[in-house]
Amino acid sequence: MTRLKLTLAYDGTRYDGWQRQGNTANTIQARVETLLSRTLERPVEIHGCGRTDAGVHARMQVCHFDVPDGTDVRGLLAALRRYLPEDIAARALEEADPRFHARLSCREKTYVYRVNTGETQDVFARRYELFLPGQLDEDAMAEAARALTGTHDYRAFTGNHRTKKSTVRTVSGIRLTREGDRLSLWFTGGGFLYNMVRIMTGTLLEVGQGRRLPEETAAALASLDRQQAGPMAPAQGLTLWEVLY
Amino acid sequence: MTRLKLTLAYDGTRYDGWQRQGNTANTIQARVETLLSRTLERPVEIHGCGRTDAGVHARMQVCHFDVPDGTDVRGLLAALRRYLPEDIAARALEEADPRFHARLSCREKTYVYRVNTGETQDVFARRYELFLPGQLDEDAMAEAARALTGTHDYRAFTGNHRTKKSTVRTVSGIRLTREGDRLSLWFTGGGFLYNMVRIMTGTLLEVGQGRRLPEETAAALASLDRQQAGPMAPAQGLTLWEVLY
Repeated sequence: MTRLKLTLAYDGTRYDGWQRQGNTANTIQARVETLLSRTLERPVEIHGCGRTDAGVHARMQVCHFDVPDGTDVRGLLAALRRYLPEDIAARALEEADPRFHARLSCREKTYVYRVNTGETQDVFARRYELFLPGQLDEDAMAEAARALTGTHDYRAFTGNHRTKKSTVRTVSGIRLTREGDRLSLWFTGGGFLYNMVRIMTGTLLEVGQGRRLPEETAAALASLDRQQAGPMAPAQGLTLWEVLY
Repeated sequence: MTRLKLTLAYDGTRYDGWQRQGNTANTIQARVETLLSRTLERPVEIHGCGRTDAGVHARMQVCHFDVPDGTDVRGLLAALRRYLPEDIAARALEEADPRFHARLSCREKTYVYRVNTGETQDVFARRYELFLPGQLDEDAMAEAARALTGTHDYRAFTGNHRTKKSTVRTVSGIRLTREGDRLSLWFTGGGFLYNMVRIMTGTLLEVGQGRRLPEETAAALASLDRQQAGPMAPAQGLTLWEVLY
């Protein structure tokens, strides 16, 4: 068998997220797997580098799967480009080392959460950002962001409360950038818990709105209590930006 | 009465164009007029600076209408922002000179036509550009564009063949810019005929693909014959970018 590395982009608006769930065909994984299985006339299972929630987008999502040796990789890429729905794009398909694993080999992921703080909805970007008119205190947000950076137990910042797996993660950086009315929050790390980026974003936005003190962020993190963190920001503003190996 | 100037942006994907047509409610003009009439409890007619075709977008469309003196303009703008559908945005509403006319006072309009020439569909911009993978000869396109610039009878470049009105227009500039895989064609002029920008684009793209010689463009223009010009490019790639007064 030959291991292949597939790089995808998708507009997550109309999907129930990345991961195949039982019989639901309406996930990105299910769409790609179904097409690959039909094209190769054999069952194909793909392994993504990260599970994006329903409504979350990806500029760069990487997955791997195995095909029989001698498979026409260029032809397979052409089939993906031709038959995938227009909101899922096959950016690249290439042979990978047999030990390559989309999730386990991943060194670093970057997510971006976009917020439009202007007075007017941006009709062209509206599906890919949160419309939140009004001023935000970006200095306070940056202070809170520093408290969320590092290696911590992020149990307070996940929607999955019952997990028995480790909730310790390393967030190597949270950066805020602004272009006109658009504030972008960039989260980089080795991996993130379920809903974690959206809860960090919701917390930082409350700090920006003055509804939460920046210096209380470290205590919320240390509490390991979901109730002490902020709300989960809406999915549409979040995009998996980049995955590094 | 007080004359107001309204600046709009819209994603034209799901509309039958700008102009109200009989009973069709599905135009941008009809949507905005209906909302204004309900809010002001009197019939309101708006006059746009240009009619965009079905599926064409506007980053900046300007229109005017009259309201009774003393109307709460800020309140009216707030109502527009609150109740317009999310693909139509009220960017600004302000009092204008009583002689201001959105179309007649307009000095210059700029349209942009965007083409993605890369191998992969851009899932986030797909509604606002034409996906046309492959190389284009931009030098040839620039040569053809020069022939389409100036003051000419553009009868060969309109979808409206039976008009008795003048088909002479002045195109002050056609510029090509490229950012990575995205080629943008910028058309600036005092006014454009029905379908004119899309037919100029279709012609220039044929030149870029080598299916039409750039030096034949002047002859196509001089022929006044629609058959001598190229095909009409799809609506989705076109955006009314800017309107100057």
